[in-house]
Amino acid sequence: MGPTSPSLTDSTLLAAVRRAIGNVPVAFVLGNAREVPQTSETIVATVRIRDRATLLSLAKDPDFGFGDAYSDGRIEVEGDLVRSLEHVYLAAARRRPPLYQRLRAKWLNWSQDNTARGSRSNIHHHYDLSNDFYRLWLDELMVYTCAYFPRPEDSLEVAQLSKMEMICRKLRLQPGETVVEAGCGWGALAIYMAQHYGVHVKAFNISHEQIIFARERAKHEGVTGKVEFIEDDYRNVSQKFDAFCSVGMLEHVGFDHYRELGRVIKCAIGDTGRGFLHYIGRNRVRPLNAWIRRRIFPGAYPPTLRESLEVLEPENFSILDVENLRMHYAKTLEHWLQRFESSFDAVVRMKGTEFARAWRLYLAGSVAAFRVGSLQLFQVLFAGARSPFVVWTREHLYAPFDEETDRELWTRAM
Amino acid sequence: MGPTSPSLTDSTLLAAVRRAIGNVPVAFVLGNAREVPQTSETIVATVRIRDRATLLSLAKDPDFGFGDAYSDGRIEVEGDLVRSLEHVYLAAARRRPPLYQRLRAKWLNWSQDNTARGSRSNIHHHYDLSNDFYRLWLDELMVYTCAYFPRPEDSLEVAQLSKMEMICRKLRLQPGETVVEAGCGWGALAIYMAQHYGVHVKAFNISHEQIIFARERAKHEGVTGKVEFIEDDYRNVSQKFDAFCSVGMLEHVGFDHYRELGRVIKCAIGDTGRGFLHYIGRNRVRPLNAWIRRRIFPGAYPPTLRESLEVLEPENFSILDVENLRMHYAKTLEHWLQRFESSFDAVVRMKGTEFARAWRLYLAGSVAAFRVGSLQLFQVLFAGARSPFVVWTREHLYAPFDEETDRELWTRAM
Repeated sequence: MGPTSPSLTDSTLLAAVRRAIGNVPVAFVLGNAREVPQTSETIVATVRIRDRATLLSLAKDPDFGFGDAYSDGRIEVEGDLVRSLEHVYLAAARRRPPLYQRLRAKWLNWSQDNTARGSRSNIHHHYDLSNDFYRLWLDELMVYTCAYFPRPEDSLEVAQLSKMEMICRKLRLQPGETVVEAGCGWGALAIYMAQHYGVHVKAFNISHEQIIFARERAKHEGVTGKVEFIEDDYRNVSQKFDAFCSVGMLEHVGFDHYRELGRVIKCAIGDTGRGFLHYIGRNRVRPLNAWIRRRIFPGAYPPTLRESLEVLEPENFSILDVENLRMHYAKTLEHWLQRFESSFDAVVRMKGTEFARAWRLYLAGSVAAFRVGSLQLFQVLFAGARSPFVVWTREHLYAPFDEETDRELWTRAM
Repeated sequence: MGPTSPSLTDSTLLAAVRRAIGNVPVAFVLGNAREVPQTSETIVATVRIRDRATLLSLAKDPDFGFGDAYSDGRIEVEGDLVRSLEHVYLAAARRRPPLYQRLRAKWLNWSQDNTARGSRSNIHHHYDLSNDFYRLWLDELMVYTCAYFPRPEDSLEVAQLSKMEMICRKLRLQPGETVVEAGCGWGALAIYMAQHYGVHVKAFNISHEQIIFARERAKHEGVTGKVEFIEDDYRNVSQKFDAFCSVGMLEHVGFDHYRELGRVIKCAIGDTGRGFLHYIGRNRVRPLNAWIRRRIFPGAYPPTLRESLEVLEPENFSILDVENLRMHYAKTLEHWLQRFESSFDAVVRMKGTEFARAWRLYLAGSVAAFRVGSLQLFQVLFAGARSPFVVWTREHLYAPFDEETDRELWTRAM
């Protein structure tokens, strides 16, 4: 206790925050009021709250209040931010989300609905932040989805290559085949498929900045005859293809549009093609953290595996293979967070301090969420009911990866 | 046309059968009335119907009418039974099941409900038909579930061994760990786990004949200290285990009891164990063939992957790996059918002609169903949300299988 005793209001509010967050090994401090957990665990961080208004917002709505106050500096975290969040998420997993959170999720589902128009606005919010910003902390190929680390010590660059290679192997792409990609980011996968597997790819994306970048790269790589980047919604995919592929888009589709996505896929590959979905999911149904949904990823929803099958089951698709790469996403995010921290000053110059702190919190929170299992990463391989694409075993996925050759191809692709 | 022209009634009824079954390359004949499909495909079989009463039962309810009439010899199939059924199932997949079939499925769900008592009766019907009967056509280890053929030309014996090995690898069993098996058949897997992986297994089964056999074998193998066979319902599993395993039981649990099964698994392995489910499933929700459900597998229901996740999702289990082995079950059933045909006379002597023909139809229909995809085979690996059992990649599943050693161990196990 300091020379003046803490105000009763502050202590009461701090106790309310503690009740909401749980007995995690994190201390809360406002002035000379201090809330220390009753635990034998070592305290991993101290959260310094600037004023009573901030404390009040935290007590009222911890998820949302914390995110905004951390972003604009009204809250400082001394200690390990990632570990603190791990503890908070673990404690939250033991409770049912309170009613106001569930109601807010319904409201956000409605107000951020991923119609063709809503999606444009939601996607623009996140992905059109400028390619230069993403270049500060992504790998050189600009792949903004979970990488695959066959060896945990692999570099992020190699792991993104391994991920793309693994997806091509799962889909068993053959030269001359046609692939449609829904949500293609900056185009790395579509180009990889064309270069390494000799397929023709039509890649859809509604992020203007990403499409411009992807087209430039395709031109530079001399694959414009094999890869077409189309600035349009997945709902406007037409034509027939041998394979459908979507990496990191289902999170942005929204549960209410799964049946629609299923029909689009069925139109594209019919009863004889095969497809691949890669997305962030959950073990059980939970609303996405409201701060993430308002400030970072409008319209996003990570489904359970069961929920995601609402896309495929009505169209009579056969599920062939599901793999959970949760720990690979934790590792991917560790790489991103590390690079982000190294470029923090550049991010501040480019986007301002509040933005930089918000993104630090988002990346740190994502590392924590994948580490403790609040989030999962599913890869789902499926095929039409009449597909001749019968996978006898999965052994071919683990054939030696020719790093020499691939590294060379990849370097050439730079 | 023969010397006398066919009766108008017979022709009308045959046309009704054709409409119900579809334009499959199978001819129907009753006396001199003949129904030939309008197709350029080669006719794969001719179905000879003995009398008008049989034809009427076929027209009224093709699934059920055909099964019973084939069993008691009122229908003969000249030609390829399996291929005929493949065509029938493919044609059926294009239609929504008629209302009476959907209503009957609901009635059967109710009348064959898998309560503790109902399950005993349902399981007794199929699995207590005498071990000597099953010995006529199963492999020597008496494994009555889908085998795994890393090389399609493997023998059934080797493929059943490979399946058991693969399950142990998926579960990453470690010496000294404890495993609970729900629905253990004749005990081969429990004994394999104990012998090859040094774990302690409690194996539950409500088939009296199977449990007696399994206990005898455990004694003979000298693993009674490591494997305990318990004649009891899965609902009575108590104690804590490192791993839960169930191969070919979920089909008999019934959708209404999935939540109950999930709670049992959660009690057994908590938040830190892992588990494995292997079961016959579907691409989309369909009632099981009524004849199979009445005559062969009372209480059975093959769920979609989505439906089966109703077991795991409410308990916050993390799905780690799903593999579809449909074509392996087609091959397993080909082996069984071939052995069954070789022992057909012995089956007739043991069980009578009607039984033997019914089982021939069931096995042939199952080959057809897995070949064309009316049925699927899912293996689902999962873990508690706090499980330290993090699978980094699945490469270890494909480490060379030491056939020499395993063959030796297996021969010794005979």
